[in-house]
Parts: sequence; structure tokens; C-alpha cells
Amino acid sequence: MRHLLSVEDLDRAAIERILDRAKSFTEVSEREIKKVPALRGRRVLNLFYEASTRTRSSFELAAKSLSADVINFAAGGSSVEKGESLKDTVQTLSAYQPDLIVIRTPHVGAAQLVANWTTASVVNAGDGKHEHPTQALLDVYTLRERLGDIDGKSIWIVGDVTHSRVARSNIHAFQKMGAHVTLCGPPTLIPRDVTALGCDVAYTLDGLGEADVVYALRMQKERMTDSFVPSIREYAAQYQIDGRRLGARQVLMHPGPVNRGVELAAEVIDSPQAVIGQQVAAGVVVRMAVL
Amino acid sequence: MRHLLSVEDLDRAAIERILDRAKSFTEVSEREIKKVPALRGRRVLNLFYEASTRTRSSFELAAKSLSADVINFAAGGSSVEKGESLKDTVQTLSAYQPDLIVIRTPHVGAAQLVANWTTASVVNAGDGKHEHPTQALLDVYTLRERLGDIDGKSIWIVGDVTHSRVARSNIHAFQKMGAHVTLCGPPTLIPRDVTALGCDVAYTLDGLGEADVVYALRMQKERMTDSFVPSIREYAAQYQIDGRRLGARQVLMHPGPVNRGVELAAEVIDSPQAVIGQQVAAGVVVRMAVL
Amino acid sequence: MRHLLSVEDLDRAAIERILDRAKSFTEVSEREIKKVPALRGRRVLNLFYEASTRTRSSFELAAKSLSADVINFAAGGSSVEKGESLKDTVQTLSAYQPDLIVIRTPHVGAAQLVANWTTASVVNAGDGKHEHPTQALLDVYTLRERLGDIDGKSIWIVGDVTHSRVARSNIHAFQKMGAHVTLCGPPTLIPRDVTALGCDVAYTLDGLGEADVVYALRMQKERMTDSFVPSIREYAAQYQIDGRRLGARQVLMHPGPVNRGVELAAEVIDSPQAVIGQQVAAGVVVRMAVL
Repeated sequence: MRHLLSVEDLDRAAIERILDRAKSFTEVSEREIKKVPALRGRRVLNLFYEASTRTRSSFELAAKSLSADVINFAAGGSSVEKGESLKDTVQTLSAYQPDLIVIRTPHVGAAQLVANWTTASVVNAGDGKHEHPTQALLDVYTLRERLGDIDGKSIWIVGDVTHSRVARSNIHAFQKMGAHVTLCGPPTLIPRDVTALGCDVAYTLDGLGEADVVYALRMQKERMTDSFVPSIREYAAQYQIDGRRLGARQVLMHPGPVNRGVELAAEVIDSPQAVIGQQVAAGVVVRMAVL
Repeated sequence: MRHLLSVEDLDRAAIERILDRAKSFTEVSEREIKKVPALRGRRVLNLFYEASTRTRSSFELAAKSLSADVINFAAGGSSVEKGESLKDTVQTLSAYQPDLIVIRTPHVGAAQLVANWTTASVVNAGDGKHEHPTQALLDVYTLRERLGDIDGKSIWIVGDVTHSRVARSNIHAFQKMGAHVTLCGPPTLIPRDVTALGCDVAYTLDGLGEADVVYALRMQKERMTDSFVPSIREYAAQYQIDGRRLGARQVLMHPGPVNRGVELAAEVIDSPQAVIGQQVAAGVVVRMAVL
Repeated sequence: MRHLLSVEDLDRAAIERILDRAKSFTEVSEREIKKVPALRGRRVLNLFYEASTRTRSSFELAAKSLSADVINFAAGGSSVEKGESLKDTVQTLSAYQPDLIVIRTPHVGAAQLVANWTTASVVNAGDGKHEHPTQALLDVYTLRERLGDIDGKSIWIVGDVTHSRVARSNIHAFQKMGAHVTLCGPPTLIPRDVTALGCDVAYTLDGLGEADVVYALRMQKERMTDSFVPSIREYAAQYQIDGRRLGARQVLMHPGPVNRGVELAAEVIDSPQAVIGQQVAAGVVVRMAVL
């Protein structure tokens, strides 16, 4: 397997291999010299067509912690602005003989296309509404650390499932690890083909108590103005995870960045149930493992 | 002392320790391999919410010269644009287990807040109108190199003192090193509580002859349109340091970038009295020492 | 020779020395550890006043492959935005004691000026319509690899010659290597003093068959709206290199990024005649040699 394009391509054993490798890197981040020579002299290209502090910097840090040379490309300031096609950009960059290309784009399937155009290994860092596999892997890693085992657990994914690549990748990953997934949100934001995914659906938080894990999605500001939800206030009233709704023994996850007071109330963000910081930390070691 | 948030927190001995350490790094910049392994494998995050060529690049170069791994964050292209709060950004970045966070923001006191939210050491690279401690340290370093000793010297700081974090940090630093500070500028740009700072005030350059050091501040373009000064021409007529006003044995400093023809006349910028280039060079070794 | 400012400064022997050195670096890009310690601890400043994915990243990768420390400056987010003059910026950056400054600007002659203001070695990465010497060197390198020898070959440069620094540098380089150069394009885009350059001129592609090498220039979008050409469709009809016009034994070059369907038809971009990817790859090793 040369690329990481989607969670769908991974089976449980492959996921566990990545998680175990990630685990072996945790001690790197904790020591004084936070660096190993594993990818010394390898070339990693970060090709980001969408702004993203977390994902870009997490990959950059992971690559540097493996001693790779990293070149960052952002759509701004690049020949992308001159109207160059993705194919031409990738073929150009391939001439640099990169070992790895990490790509984020707003277009579904773009990472797969890139993989066809280059001899480098390609890591999908988010392609439109499609997939964001390293996010799912770091979430599974975080849960495994917290719960020991995910098998048989009930995970509720709450929010705008329809437009979320995070949701899509995580549904696959959680199910492959043996969890039962329930999708919760307003009917306008839950995809219609959801039963084909093998998930339950809930349109209210009434049954949330049965969840072992509550995974709140980020509510994109764009959605709020797109009339998918009547108003931010009404959305929060019905779907916000707050101290009253979150049980003491549930685990709270969020892919970040959080809209405080929208999908999460301030009091749960820093609660003992929340593993949001652990997810970010897991991002570094999981991406080291993937690279 | 884990952080460097303000010059106010430093006593003279602490300042001198930093300067001595900086001095020991000067030979690094002069040799062929401009690099020492002091921070190999340490993670330095540059978190810049304001554009700044000089400060950002000076910190980046200092960190790289110490063999640290550097990750740059600019407000543009980051989740800051998605409306994430500073606290959430810092908590996210802290999960990367950085050893150091260098932060510049337009908000007074933000560096102190960041220090509360992270286990990393925090260096304030400018927080609004408040402080810019490494600028003051590099200025003191530059003066000590030029004059041998600062004790008892007279230093005039000329320009927009009210809105200048450089002025604020330098007043503290120069005084702690035993200098006498006079603030000079139009009454609209000199703070009212200035006698509490232990400085003299002058509203004209008439007495400039008594200064050993003339420290010209940058006149922000914004100020000129804010009616703090009647016009740029009038400001220059009264407060510009030019060849006529600058004495042959005075030292001329400026934090850069210079508005040629506004606060400084072209002829003094490259004069033997000017140490502007030395200040920039000092920035690298002083920041190496601070890191 | 401390700087690389223009191809005009190089004689054939100097060009061949650079190409030979570049050739010696090709095996670096092909091995696992794509890195040599030649410039370890040296400081390379990339000072880019114009957006450019290819050139900036190619220089960055070249410098990192030589183990140098690289600091990138873009006009956006720098004190350039605050109105600092190029001279002041360069003098500031020189205080960092860089070994090399790589500069791209929209101003003819700026690289030469920079060389006057700094003790660093300066590499011109494009100065307005004037020169882009490393582009010419990588093109000569690519041709030498493909053809063995350039001496006596016929090279047609097709497109907007007037506004192209690539054309200007390449005319000099190809001629110094013994090739015969023909410039082809609409009369509005061919400079008037062209016979002084020792080139032939053609206003149609009718005689293209005699060329050993077809070098298509990028048609700047700006030109199309500037009424230098009647319309993009008409330009393409007359000057586009397509499968019908390109001979089976000709070599096709383009400096990138390509406007698909304007100066090149899609079918020739990926044709066996095209060496566009080889040009990009040559860029890395040629820039390593130059640095």
C-alpha cells in the first residue's frame, strides 16, 4: 500500500498497525530531542489548497520530527493563482522527486487523482466532503488510549454529517474497529443514504445517554447562512453538547477548531470528559506513523 | 524564569546574563557553519498575528541557528481566520508539545495569557502597545557594544511614544541599565503618565545636543491620518533627525523599518553614527540567547 | 564571480562548469537520502516580491538538499507592505549575515542593485522583463541531456518574447552554447532590436519544421487583455504548438506553468517530444550547482 487516500481502503489490521506505530512515537514527543532520523533526507511536499492551521502544521511537525525536508505549498502565492491545473502542478512537483505528497483540496477525489499522476506516495489530508483519513486514525488512536478498546462501543456523531469529510472517514474507521455509530443532527444535515452506511439515525439528542462517545462536528459558518439550519441559536438549543447533556462517563471528541457556544458549550470544552487536546497530540504521532 | 513576557520582569543582572550569552553567539554568525546544536530536536512555534518581516525572520533564524525545528503560524491561512479564539489556538498548539512559543499579537497582555495556557516557554514578540522585550534587549546589547557602558548615559527617545511598545520596553531596559531617558515628541504622542516612568519630557529637539544616544521611533502611517500630527511634512520639520540635528559623537538608533524622509533624513541612515544594521544583527544573537 | 545576475555575465566555459556540477547532483535526487552536507550551516534567504511556486520552491528544495538553512520572505506579510524600500530591506537582511540571497522582483535591474548593497552572494531569480538566468541554465542543461550537444542546433522561441525574461536569458544562453535562435510571434510581441541580438525572426510558424527545438513561452493572461493580441482564440490559431505542427523528432520545451490550450495543445504537453518535467527536475540540480 503506497498511498493513504481513504479509510475505506484500510482493514482493521492495517489500522491497528498504524496505531501501534504511532504509539511507538509518543515517547519521541516527550523527550528532549523530539526527533528521530527515520525520514532523513526524504522530501515531503505539503500541498494545501485550503487553509488549515491544524492539519498543515501537524503534518509539517510530524515530517520534521522524522527529520524529513518539508516544502510547503499554499494555493495563495503559487502558480495555482495563475490558473495552472492540479494535474500540471502535481506533475511539476513530481519532478522534484518527492517521497511523499500530502494534499488537501476542496475537490472530492482529488487525492486519488494525484496518486495517479505521481510516483510519490500520496496522503489525503482532506478532499472536499469525501474523506480525511488521518483525522479518523487519530480519533481512533485517541479513543483506544482512553477506552482501551473500541469494540462494541456506541459512538454518536452529532452535527452536520452531510458536509463533513471527518464524519465520513470516522464512520468507516469506528465501524471497522467494531463500534456502533449513531448519526445525530437536523434532517437537513444527515445524508439520506445513511442506512446503507450501517448507522442509526437520531434527530434529537434524547437518546444520547446510551453513547459511550460523543463526537461533535464543527458547524461550518457557511451552513448557517445556507438555510440548512434555521438559526445558530436554534441549532445550539437542539444540538449543542453542554454540561447538562454530557454524561460524567462519556468521552467528548471534536475535530477542532471549536465554535465555542455553538456545537459545544464552554463548560464541556475543558471538562474531564473532553479529549480534544489529546486528539491534537495524537495527530502528530499518527501522522508520523502514516508518513 | 520560564517566560520572557516583559522587560519589567527582568533586573539588571538578568539582562546582563542574556547579553553575555548573546555575545558568546556572535562568533557563530561569523563562521562558515553558522549553527550550534544547542536546541536540536526542540520545537519552536512562531505564532504571528501581525505581519513582521524582521521580528519573525529574526526569531526563525535564531531558532534554526540553534538547530531547533521551527513551525511558523501566521494569522492568514490559519484557523484564526475561522474565528478560533486565541485560547483554543494555543491549547491546540500546546498539544504539539512545543518547547517554546514565540507570539506577536495586537492585543496588550496576550503573551501573558498565552503563558497561562501552555506548558511551553513563551517569548513575547510584541503585544499591542504594551511590550517588545527582545527589541529592548537587542538595543541594550547594541549600545553596550558601541559605548562599552550605558550607565549614566543620556538617551532621547523621539517620536510616537504613546503607541510604541518599543518605547515602553526600552524605557524600562535603559533605566535598569542606569541610563537617563528623555522622551521627545508632539504632546499628542507623549503619554501623560510619563513622569511616573521617571523620564524627562521635551516637546522640541532643542535640547537634543545633551543626548549620548538618539533613539528615533517609527512613525506609523496610521497615526498620520489619525490627526495625532497635523501632517507628515510638519512632523518631519519639527522631529526628523537629520544631519544638522545629529551630533558627530551621538549614537543613532531606530527599530526599523525606517520611513526615509519622515523620522530620519536619508543622510543619517547610513551615517557613522547610525547603528541600525548592528541592531538587526544583535537581534539574531540576542534571540538565540533568549531561546 | 560572487553573484549570478545575468546570463550575459557568463561565458560558455562558465556555463559548462555549472552544468557539470549540476550533473554531479543528479544522483542525490535519486537516492534515499536526498541530501548532501555541502552548505550545512549556511544561510540562504529567499526574497520573493512576486508569487512563484516553481522558482521559489525549486530554490528552497535545492538549498535544503545542500543542508543549508533557508528563510523565506514573501512581499505579503513583510515590512515591504509597510513601504520599506528594497535597499532598507536588503540592508536589514544583510545583518543576518546570509551567505546567499535569492531574489525575485518585478523591477529590471533590482538583483544588480541588491548585489551592491550586501556582502552576500546574490542569485537573480527573475528581475522584471530583464533576466532569469537559472531558468536559462536549467533549459540548457535539459537540452544537453536530451541532445548531447547544442552546438549548431536550431531553436525556435515562440510567443511573447517582448515581455519575457525567460526569452531574454535563453537567447543569450542558447547562443553562447552555439545554437541558432529564431524568435517567432506576432509583431506586437517581438522586440524591435531583435536583429541586434543576432536572432532570426518569423511572424508565422510556417518554417517551424527546420527547428530542432521548439521553446514555447507562457502567454501571460495580462497580455491578452492588453490588446497585444486580438484574442486568445486567434493567438492560439496562429501560434499554438499542437500535434500537427510539432515534428516527431523535435524537442518541445516550456518554462511552466503551461496555459493548456493556449500556447500548447493538450496532446503535446504529455508527448514524447516534451521535456517539461525534465526542465523542472533540472531546476533543482542546476540551482544546487549555482548555490
